[in-house]
Formats: sequence, structure tokens, C-alpha cells
Amino acid sequence: MEVITEINKMRTRVLTFKGSRKSIGFAPTMGALHDGHISLMRCARKENDEIVVSIYLNPKQFDNKDDFDNYPRRLKEDIEVIREENVDVVFAPSNDEMYPVGYCTNVRQDRITDALCGRVRPGHFNGVTTVVTKLFNIVGPDRAYFGQKDYQQSAIIKKLVADLNMDIDIKVCPTVREEGGLALSSRNRRLNIEERQSSLCIYSSLLKARDMFVSNIRDTKEIIEEMSSVIKKTKHVKIDYISIVNICTLEDLSSINEKALAAVAVWIGNTRLIDNTILE
Amino acid sequence: MEVITEINKMRTRVLTFKGSRKSIGFAPTMGALHDGHISLMRCARKENDEIVVSIYLNPKQFDNKDDFDNYPRRLKEDIEVIREENVDVVFAPSNDEMYPVGYCTNVRQDRITDALCGRVRPGHFNGVTTVVTKLFNIVGPDRAYFGQKDYQQSAIIKKLVADLNMDIDIKVCPTVREEGGLALSSRNRRLNIEERQSSLCIYSSLLKARDMFVSNIRDTKEIIEEMSSVIKKTKHVKIDYISIVNICTLEDLSSINEKALAAVAVWIGNTRLIDNTILE
Repeated sequence: MEVITEINKMRTRVLTFKGSRKSIGFAPTMGALHDGHISLMRCARKENDEIVVSIYLNPKQFDNKDDFDNYPRRLKEDIEVIREENVDVVFAPSNDEMYPVGYCTNVRQDRITDALCGRVRPGHFNGVTTVVTKLFNIVGPDRAYFGQKDYQQSAIIKKLVADLNMDIDIKVCPTVREEGGLALSSRNRRLNIEERQSSLCIYSSLLKARDMFVSNIRDTKEIIEEMSSVIKKTKHVKIDYISIVNICTLEDLSSINEKALAAVAVWIGNTRLIDNTILE
Repeated sequence: MEVITEINKMRTRVLTFKGSRKSIGFAPTMGALHDGHISLMRCARKENDEIVVSIYLNPKQFDNKDDFDNYPRRLKEDIEVIREENVDVVFAPSNDEMYPVGYCTNVRQDRITDALCGRVRPGHFNGVTTVVTKLFNIVGPDRAYFGQKDYQQSAIIKKLVADLNMDIDIKVCPTVREEGGLALSSRNRRLNIEERQSSLCIYSSLLKARDMFVSNIRDTKEIIEEMSSVIKKTKHVKIDYISIVNICTLEDLSSINEKALAAVAVWIGNTRLIDNTILE
């Protein structure tokens, strides 16, 4: 496995892959890897000749300086984790490589970035679409892998790829959960034991939504109220949003007559966690 | 020569080129072709195996509806012109192909798009960077060709390619001029005989700037004043801007101590024309 930190070297490596007609699977990450990331690498391994994993903590997508400062950084350990996974290249560029002095180009979206997390994290998804465009251009993947936990991110990247005519297949892999149901996230490391216990209410609220949907309840206000009451009776938890939206446009639904997504964001102490489930 | 109107078909064609390891030269145009465009095709022909020319009047880069409505449209004649030039593919997509319902992604730049024409044409260059990103992704060129007449556009596209890490070589070809010095432009068709005569003052003002520079005058205010007086004594002409800027950042210079660009935009009747010269 090769670890590359320079864009030009990564590009040269990619040209070698393409020259020998190898397909490239790509899993972009911000590091602090967990089994969710590993599952992306394994999905990619099944479908491609060469696997590239990037580790880049993109400052542009942090709307909150504290969140950026406190985000776990474990490059060395991450590389050891990836080494076990039959990955071909780790791409870990510096900020100076990615955003040199004078950098001035941004990729932005309307509407889809205003929903859900976009409403409470201004600028976040513009940071995501910009860095993903750059990484896609550097790595030149045939397929790129994202986790369903960050559903809005994957919807936005599908739209990005469609709108800008990139020839890349976006694959969304199932959310990986702990035994109690907590979705794996690099931010989970920040939870103390009590908070970790409280965090289980997120998954419970999603199960409640699924139960109600299966019982033919279609009124989203009714479902959201029940989800909300599951969360509200838990200690240390503050609701950021609970929404039921169209699965493509992410626009709020009043009634579920089309494929929908129930999405939850909560603060547990100082940690913001998100999760979602598809209702179909 | 093949004329392709669908993105998917263009993509398939490009994959064939790449599969047989052919290099692709690309000249994006808005049609109403003149000898300036032809010169781009001929430059491209010398350096690439396959030549793609696009004809697409991009609505997103028109800040003025009248300008868009009055922009010359001559697709049939353009195709006949290109047929003489040993071009392999003409790509002429519809607006529905390029911006389908629900389209929401834009590529934007700061600073460099605020200078010169950007100051008076808000949104124009965001339309350019967006459509060029799309066309580059569809056509996958090794080299792309732009005219020096639209100097700011070529500087912006060089920055776009660098910032978003596109592996494309941007070539800027010399401005093609009529005998009197008027730079070729699709908008010249709108000039009547009197206006065409008046338009010669643009080139005269640039020659004046070059003369002064060669005579070791470095104060830009002094040069701009002289350029301005050349234009002001001409009938039917209104100055939009006269600027002397850093050749990369396009920031205004007070004194020419680095490679500089003298750039002019004027209204001649209802037609806005631009031109420039490099001072080095």
C-alpha cells in the first residue's frame, strides 16, 4: 500500500491505473476511521481493480471552529487500519496542497443544501461539494463510496455528479451501527459513558418512525411528534431537527406518498450526532 | 465530421477516443463563428489527435437579456464552417441537456471574477466557470483553446483548472484582427458602417498604451488618460472601462513593475466590445 501526500504524485499514480485499464474505487474520508469507513473500503474492493482511500480533514466544510479543532485526528493509526483492508493507495494531502495561497474557486448548490443539516450548518455543504469535486478530479474514480449515515451528503454528491456531468458512479453503503443501534461516527469518540447511553434514543426514534410507517401512518407531523417524544424523555439530549423529506430533493413532506427519509440531528452534551432511515 | 447533440452520445464518443489513446483538443464556442474561432481549431489541430468543437450559447453567462436575445445564432452555417477545418466532432447540446429541470450546481470564483468585465457584468463569469466545468467533464480534453481577446475569461479558466485540479492544458491563442485592427468578435456583426469605423479607436488606444510602455512610461494613470483621450475623440463610443492590471490576478496596478495587461471595454452604439494587449 502506498501513502501519497502530493497531488501531482497521486495524479501520476492514477494515470498508471488508467493506462493499464484498471477501474478505480474511491472512498473519501476525514480520517478517525471506524467500521463504517471500513465497510466502504470493502464495498469498493468487491467492485474495482484499484482502491484509493483519501484522508483529508477539510477545513472548508466546518462551519464551527470548535468542531474543527476538536475533530479527532489520527493519521498514523488510520493508515494502519487501512493497511489491513487491501487498499492500494492512501491519499492524504496537506491543506497547502489542497488550498494553496490565492485559491478562489468554490462549487455551490442551491435548495438541496438548504434542507436538513444545511439549515443549521451554513456553508458546510459548499465545503463538501468543493472538496469532493477536487478529490474526484485528482483521483479520477469510476465509483465513489459514501455512507448512508450522512444521507444528505450522498444526495448532494449524486446531484453534483449529475449536474456537473462527472462520469462517476456514486454508491451509498448501509449505515454501520453498534449493538444498541448507535450509528458509527468519528464524533462518537467524544461521548462519555452517560452520553453514549443517551445516544441510543436516536435509533429508537427512527425505529418508532419505521413502526408507524409500517402501520400505515402517513402524516409526518404525527410521526415527528412521536419521534420527538422518544428523544425528549432522554437525558443530556437536545433536538437539532427531526424531519421527514422527499428522498431526492430533501424537501419537507406533510404526508408520505412517495419514498421518504426520516432524519434526525441531536446534540448530546457538546456533540452533534445525525442518523436517518428510509421509509418505503 | 460528426455532429452530436446529446451528452451521453458525446461521452461515448470520448470513451472511444480515450480507449484508443487519442489526445483530445477542445475549442468551446458560443457559435456565430469567425476567423478567431477558426484559429483556435487550427491551433488545436496541430497539437491533438482528435478535435472537438462545442457550440453552445450558454444562457447562464448572459447578465443582460437583450444581449442574449440579440446574440447571433447560426448553427447551420457554423457547422459548414467547421466542416472545412478537419474537426472530428461538433458538440451542440440543447439547454435541456445542459440544464435539466432541478439543476442546482454552480462553480464560482472570488476576486478574479470581480475585476475588469466582472465589475460591470455581475454573474457573467460564474456562468462561464459553470458551463466550462460541465463541458470539460463531458468532452474530457487534454488541451482546451481560448482566444486572448477574452483575456479575463482565459485567466479565469486557468485558475478554475488549477483550483479544481482538472488535468487540462489551457492554451491561449493570439487575438485575430481585421485589417484596421478591430479584434474579431461575434458581436461585430451588429455594427453598422459608421460604428465599425469608430470601433478602430479601441485598437488605437491599445497601440498608444504599448507605445508609452515601450517609451518607459510606467505610471498607469498617465497611460490610461492617454488611452482614454484616444477613445473620447471618437464618435458613437462610450468607455465602459480602461484598466491596467496584473496579468494573473487582474488586480489594478498603479505602476507597471510586473507583467501587465491593458484592457479596454467600450460601448459602440448598443454593442459592447472588448480588447486588450499584454505589456511586457
